[in-house]
Amino acid sequence: MYGLASGALPLGQFVARDGIIDLAWGHPDPALLPIGGLQRAANAVLARYGADALGYGYPTGPGPLIAWLCDHLGAIDGRKPDPEAVLATAGNSQALDQVATILTKPGDSVLVEAPTYHLAVRILRDHPLNLVPIPSDEDGMRVEALPGIMRALRRGGAGLQANGGRSGRPRLLYCVPTFNNPTGASLPPERRRQLVEFAAEAGIVIVEDDAYGELAYDAPRPPSLWSLAPPGVVVRLGSFSKSLAPGLRAGFLTADAAIVERFRESGQLDSGGGVSHFSSLVIAEFARSGDYSANVARLRAAYRERRDALLDALGESSRPALDWRRPGGGYFAWVALPAGTDARVLLRKAEAAGVGFMTGPSFYAGPIPSAATGRIRLAFTRYGPEALIEAGRRLLAVLDLAAG
Amino acid sequence: MYGLASGALPLGQFVARDGIIDLAWGHPDPALLPIGGLQRAANAVLARYGADALGYGYPTGPGPLIAWLCDHLGAIDGRKPDPEAVLATAGNSQALDQVATILTKPGDSVLVEAPTYHLAVRILRDHPLNLVPIPSDEDGMRVEALPGIMRALRRGGAGLQANGGRSGRPRLLYCVPTFNNPTGASLPPERRRQLVEFAAEAGIVIVEDDAYGELAYDAPRPPSLWSLAPPGVVVRLGSFSKSLAPGLRAGFLTADAAIVERFRESGQLDSGGGVSHFSSLVIAEFARSGDYSANVARLRAAYRERRDALLDALGESSRPALDWRRPGGGYFAWVALPAGTDARVLLRKAEAAGVGFMTGPSFYAGPIPSAATGRIRLAFTRYGPEALIEAGRRLLAVLDLAAG
Repeated sequence: MYGLASGALPLGQFVARDGIIDLAWGHPDPALLPIGGLQRAANAVLARYGADALGYGYPTGPGPLIAWLCDHLGAIDGRKPDPEAVLATAGNSQALDQVATILTKPGDSVLVEAPTYHLAVRILRDHPLNLVPIPSDEDGMRVEALPGIMRALRRGGAGLQANGGRSGRPRLLYCVPTFNNPTGASLPPERRRQLVEFAAEAGIVIVEDDAYGELAYDAPRPPSLWSLAPPGVVVRLGSFSKSLAPGLRAGFLTADAAIVERFRESGQLDSGGGVSHFSSLVIAEFARSGDYSANVARLRAAYRERRDALLDALGESSRPALDWRRPGGGYFAWVALPAGTDARVLLRKAEAAGVGFMTGPSFYAGPIPSAATGRIRLAFTRYGPEALIEAGRRLLAVLDLAAG
Repeated sequence: MYGLASGALPLGQFVARDGIIDLAWGHPDPALLPIGGLQRAANAVLARYGADALGYGYPTGPGPLIAWLCDHLGAIDGRKPDPEAVLATAGNSQALDQVATILTKPGDSVLVEAPTYHLAVRILRDHPLNLVPIPSDEDGMRVEALPGIMRALRRGGAGLQANGGRSGRPRLLYCVPTFNNPTGASLPPERRRQLVEFAAEAGIVIVEDDAYGELAYDAPRPPSLWSLAPPGVVVRLGSFSKSLAPGLRAGFLTADAAIVERFRESGQLDSGGGVSHFSSLVIAEFARSGDYSANVARLRAAYRERRDALLDALGESSRPALDWRRPGGGYFAWVALPAGTDARVLLRKAEAAGVGFMTGPSFYAGPIPSAATGRIRLAFTRYGPEALIEAGRRLLAVLDLAAG
């Protein structure tokens, strides 16, 4: 399983491959992790709270993190949550898993974007849930398609049953409306409003994966769906993996008090207490000193430069053979290849030429539209600008689009 | 939900109540948490691994923890696992939740001891699973009852269907065979052998909750079921909450490579990487220095003294009105009250007199046997010997059994 000739056991998730600039990974740049600041915060937490930092934590999260989150979200997201509407999590992957455990019944339908975050699909299917795709365009989810999907589900439309199981009213709608994974798109304001209205009326809980919300490069972040919706309609998953450090395994969700109470009363929280107690305290301490906001500002500047380095390297000269939108934030650019190019075929050639990426078909829970075979996702966060420029050049070369 | 007049948000899970020595909580003594040692380990981890300590971790756990665990378990449990058979977890509550997600289908039957850990029941039912009780005696699970339970399940015996759902062959058997919660009992060697033989033959996976295995007070720990069983028969859940610090939210499981591979391929681990990356590295660093073994030795000595202080305070003079066995390890004593005493009635009087505990009926997933109403669980780890002696005195006083 490890397959390491040296016999050493691996430490991290990333797998380096010789000579390949691998834009497949949605990982932060290790050089941008604030090691010293987090070290100071960890020491300060143990000095300040002593044993309270190492005992069983309050089930919904330690007070210092919850208090800071309320203030912080009030400042950046236009709506300040009540403490009772906030839950500390162990990151969005763990949070989505628990959302599935606590808020669904096995075989329930869950609406997901097409394309959508491929590993969220895997987390939801582990439960098991029946995933129903919602089509997207270049602005994100086509919200106007939702009533038709609902009608088809009520009729038991077999074409919408991607995963077996019961049909009927979907329980959840999972989406990444802000700096989407994989497309980078952000849902326009009018669609946000329509989406929360639809969900409120239909009795569907929106699970808003907001992992990338802090990483806005050109303008303030769009308001979260959670900030726009009536209580109980949206569960927003916020992560510290992208804005701080994934190894701490910490995040949060905002919902309403009734939904947070359902998590609080779950067996796992009642048994083990808060799921990220020490990490959450370290983050609260880091944030209290101002370091969190400074870190986010630093990441925005660095990733903005990287986004531009990569996309400028792909270059206007390659259009319209290559087509993309410059994402306003997040980790990913979603690039349409020249007509007739199959991304999976291209990937083999590209890796041989020293550049990796993920292919469009990876991101569909249901049928793969033919246009998706000509799409690729490029992550521009893990490597510095020079490596990204080189990756862009290699990609153009294998496409015979090298800039003249 | 918080209900604090001060408006301050809580930090920890424990809720102090004025004047009550509360033996209901299965928590460590905050004074016994090795704050300084863990602080040194956290600093050493960041110095040694830098960004690798804060990035996405290897999905099955960071190499340094896995390597140390293999050596450590080989030394204390008579069988050294292969690295591929070990998974880092975020503690036994998270691990049991993931076992339910990955290794069961909704509505599967799970065999559980009667009595059993009450919050494990809640975690399993959150999935939902159908819990089937196995009777116990003073030595623990009555393994010889298992074939009869299996026959009754095959007949669809309604009396065994505690939670609705499908009947048929149980998927899992959850148990705490070593220093049981709530009884303190350890399954005798012959029953251990019979249990793993039964499970291997019946095709049932035993989920061995081994949270207390390190805390053996009178003799070396009994061999885990995992160490006795053929590959694939036992998933042993090991925790650092009892042997080190619960706020780190870290533990491990040992199984076989095929089962660990199922976890590794789950959506949650593929998405978020290792579930306790930084904490696991801190623990590996703490252990590498020898501090872990020293800490366990210190806990054993402290908790042995506390066990004896509490049970000596209950005193031989109160027998046979009160009856208990001195547990060989762990957190709990399981005490039979004088005939006709209802533990739930006693609890109200006891709390008024300044002592708390958990009552027997809390620990049953199925029908509550009449004898259980006369049982209480006393946790002897959170308070020092003097408080425990006082708690014992208060309990005897409300029972009119005060030592003469």
